[in-house]
This record gives sequence, C-alpha cells and structure tokens, in this order.
Amino acid sequence: MKIAISTSSFASIDTTPLELLKANGLQVVSNPFGRKMNEDEIINHLQGVDGLLAGLETLNANVFKKCPQLKAITRVGIGMENVDLDAAKKAGIMVSNTPDGPSDAVAEMTLAAALALSRSILPTSAALHQKQWSKIIGKGLKNTKVLVLGYGRIGQKVAELLHVFGAKIMVCDPIIQQASLSPHFQLVGLKEGISNAEIITLHTAGNQPILKSLEFESMREGVILMNSARGGLIDEAALIEALDSGKVSSAWLDVFLEEPYTGRLTEYEQVLLTPHMSTYSVQCRKDMETEAVNTLMRDLGV
Amino acid sequence: MKIAISTSSFASIDTTPLELLKANGLQVVSNPFGRKMNEDEIINHLQGVDGLLAGLETLNANVFKKCPQLKAITRVGIGMENVDLDAAKKAGIMVSNTPDGPSDAVAEMTLAAALALSRSILPTSAALHQKQWSKIIGKGLKNTKVLVLGYGRIGQKVAELLHVFGAKIMVCDPIIQQASLSPHFQLVGLKEGISNAEIITLHTAGNQPILKSLEFESMREGVILMNSARGGLIDEAALIEALDSGKVSSAWLDVFLEEPYTGRLTEYEQVLLTPHMSTYSVQCRKDMETEAVNTLMRDLGV
Repeated sequence: MKIAISTSSFASIDTTPLELLKANGLQVVSNPFGRKMNEDEIINHLQGVDGLLAGLETLNANVFKKCPQLKAITRVGIGMENVDLDAAKKAGIMVSNTPDGPSDAVAEMTLAAALALSRSILPTSAALHQKQWSKIIGKGLKNTKVLVLGYGRIGQKVAELLHVFGAKIMVCDPIIQQASLSPHFQLVGLKEGISNAEIITLHTAGNQPILKSLEFESMREGVILMNSARGGLIDEAALIEALDSGKVSSAWLDVFLEEPYTGRLTEYEQVLLTPHMSTYSVQCRKDMETEAVNTLMRDLGV
Repeated sequence: MKIAISTSSFASIDTTPLELLKANGLQVVSNPFGRKMNEDEIINHLQGVDGLLAGLETLNANVFKKCPQLKAITRVGIGMENVDLDAAKKAGIMVSNTPDGPSDAVAEMTLAAALALSRSILPTSAALHQKQWSKIIGKGLKNTKVLVLGYGRIGQKVAELLHVFGAKIMVCDPIIQQASLSPHFQLVGLKEGISNAEIITLHTAGNQPILKSLEFESMREGVILMNSARGGLIDEAALIEALDSGKVSSAWLDVFLEEPYTGRLTEYEQVLLTPHMSTYSVQCRKDMETEAVNTLMRDLGV
C-alpha cells in the first residue's frame, strides 16, 4: 500500500513515526513543496495513494473523485474543517484525526502567551534591548479573572494550568453543566463571561465569529485576548478597533482567517503573533504523528 | 500609635493594605517625596513614630538614636541590606521583612520566561510582524530536563510549577537532602546538573559567580539559561561567549551586576531582558504590602 503525507514537516524532528510506516511495509510519498498544497497539487500527490496523513489542504468531493484509490485520511491534528466529511463518506473514505496529541502542547503555548502578556515581558525586553530600563507592573495570573471559551480537551487543560497559577476561571461552553465542572470553576454565559474577564482565551470549534463589535463593546477596559483555536472566531476589524481604543490592551493570535497571515495586525506591537504553531513542540509532533500513523494503519486494516 | 511609610509606591496599586492600618486605629504618615529618602529626611519622617513600613533608605544607629519612639521596622520586600541590624538590636527595635510575598510573582515570571523561550514565541512573533511566516518547533517543557539551582522559597515554587508542565526536575542546593524533596525531583551536584540540563534556572542567594567559563563548557549544546536571582551569579563574558558559539541557545536575565543595564547583552536578540521586575505584579505588591502591615502590627502588639 501507498501512503501520502501532505503535512510539510512530518517526521522532521523525530523519525520514529516514519519508521513505523516503513516497518509495516508501506510505501511513503512526502510533501515535495514544504508548504500547504493547493487543490491541483494534492490531487496530483494522491494518485495511486491508499491513505493520506493530512495537513490543512482542501480535501473536497472533486479531490476524492479524482483520487479513486484513496481509502482513508488521518488528519495530523484536530481540526477537520478542510475535509468535506459528507463527500468523504459518499466516496467511502474513512476520516480520522488525532484528538489527544495536541492538547498539552496547545495548553502549554496558551500559558506561555498568557504569562508573557500579563507580565509585559515583550515590551520591557524590547525596551531594554534599546537600553531603556522601564519596569511595568503587570496584572499577572494570580486572582485574575480568565474566561475560557470552549471547554473541550484543550480548554480543560488550559483551565487546569491557569488554576495552578491562581487565576479565577470562568468557563463558557453550551454543552457543559456546572455539576461536571471543578468546584473552582464557574460556568457563565457568553455575555457574563465577556463583561467580567480580564483575560479571554478561545478554545472552541466552529468558524463563525463569536467576538464581534458588540462583544468587544461589553469587554472590560484593558482586557487581554488570546486565540489559538480558529482564525474565524474573531472579527479582525472589530479587534483592530478595540486595540486602537485601548479596550483590548494586548492579544495573542496563533490562527488567522488567511494563512500565512500578512494583515494589519502585524502593525500592532502589543499583539503577539505566532504562525499557527501551538502544536509545534518536539514532544507534541512525535505524539501526534505517532497517533496519526497508528490510526491510519488501523483504518486501512494494516 | 503612629505608623510611617517610607516606600514611595505603597498602596498605589491597591489600597487594601492602607485600609488595614486605618481599620486598626493606626495613624499613618506616607512618604511625601515619592522617592527614596536621605538620612535627614527619614529622621524627620520618623519623629513621634512607633513603627515603620520601610523601603531601601538607610536605617542606621544615628537614625535610631534620633527617633527614640521607634519600636519596629518591617521591610516591604526581602533584602535588609539597608538596615543596620546590630544597631537596631541595641536600640531595642524589632526588624522584619516579607519573605513570602514575592515568591509567587517571581515563580510566575520564571515560568513566563521558560515557556516563552522553550516555545520560541519571541523570534516567531518578531518575524510575523515582518510578515514572515516561519514556524519553529520548540522543545517545550514536557519531558524537558530542568536544573533548579537554589531551592529556597522561590526555587521550590518554580520546581512545582515546572513539574505541572511535565518537566523533569533536577535540584541543586547544598543544604537540601533528597529525603526532603518530592520523589519526582532529583537532587544533583552542580556538575551533574549543569551537564544534563536542557534548561538551567537560578534561584540562589550570594553574589559570587556560579556559572563561569568552565561551567559553560560542560553544558549541553543549545541549553536555555535563566537568572532572576542575582546579577553576579553569572560571568557575563562567559555567557556572551556561550551565546556566540550557540552553546546557550537562548536566555532570560532579570538581574544584572549594574542596574540599569546597558551592556553587550542588549545586542543579543535571543536573550530576553527584563528590568529587575520579577516581583512587579499587582498581586505581589498587594501581598507584600499586606504581609508587611500584618507583620508590623504583630511586632507592635496591635
């Protein structure tokens, strides 16, 4: 059987997942572009291929029609918005993801951003590199009200870590009941959470904007906003307006509606911008790639 | 009873500590200068005063002689180098500090730096602000070997937080026994710790260099070095050599031999530089001031 890889960095850190494929007698074709493929490229890449270890390229009905040998897709990651699941079902293609691998790494990255922003280490370090010694008294996380929007695997992990630092956690997720939450955490509605939070962190699915002008208006002055979930969850124009007015004091964005991102937020020094790399840790790549290989082999009956 | 305050920013962030004094029927005189007082000024400030919430002004035998009503001093902070402890003892003045207040804030800042450096958020954000989308796969903290050098209040707190993120902790402190350590933590000698660590974080007292050329030579390639303890603990020339060679991949320094710092490390982009502000969080100021008020009232028998 032939396996195609479309993620651009597969096994680049640790070759164990690739060796696992080869040890099971599978032929492997890697992504030759070193970037996300377009529709024509992925169709070409999948000719004669039985299983795909998928990145974020579009996998739609047209792709499936033109790659009739494809039997299984495993996303190396969680999000499956790039895969037309109905079309895959009709084409008889099994689609899986790796829900467990990334949680620790994304939560770790979220805490990195929360701590960096709430203690103002970026502007003070930038100033000191210009030989300006200017201290800032940051809010820190202890006793700070944090709204965790979306309480899936990652949201839960983020809430637990924030709690260790003494933050006061509000959770907003329509499918969660207070009874199933830690007694330290408070279940809130979106409006209540947004208007009380000093830090808002997004960990929800979907791609409809949750934070638009109206929501920004009801936020506390100086709130910190963080998004490592989906680019479409925040109305960027509304965020820019809130940065200009000071309503949002600083922000971290790891995801964007269009990636690679080159938009207006690059002009805002108070915004920490990372290139969709919350899952880019050595441990996480190894965990996620190994999980993806095992899942794909299971789906292909290897 | 009358209490004098000599720190310039007391209760400026949160008035709770000041209210606590007044609620206990104490008369309070604040620092009228908004800066560190000289000897004449502090003598004048302490006339008819029973207790002092002290900053970093000089408190010597002459001050104590000219302020006979003074019974107790509490430093709002840890260091007591500005107080002549022998002279205070002879004058019958109790002297205390606030050892607990800063631990959480310094540990929080240390984790901010450890996470930021180990996940490479600074260079990737700087690049993205230049519209360059370049992902870096960081080591992260999970399963990363960290040497905690110095295991006092702050070192212990740092070790506990690192452990929550899955780091493997080595502790080096001459006065600690393995039996008194968490079973998750490994007690090591300096040489063993330095040669195995992927991250080294300093939390020890003293001002003699612990890390000199010889120690840098035995470190692992690409180690991350962090110092929030004392500027003199690292030989700066040796650190610069290790940065140039790549032996040290990145570093965080919050303390320097001379402050404000304007030295050569400002030229190194891979070094996070903060202006001695590990204790600069809202909560820490409040905690430290509240601890100082409670300690002073205890010492005065209020």
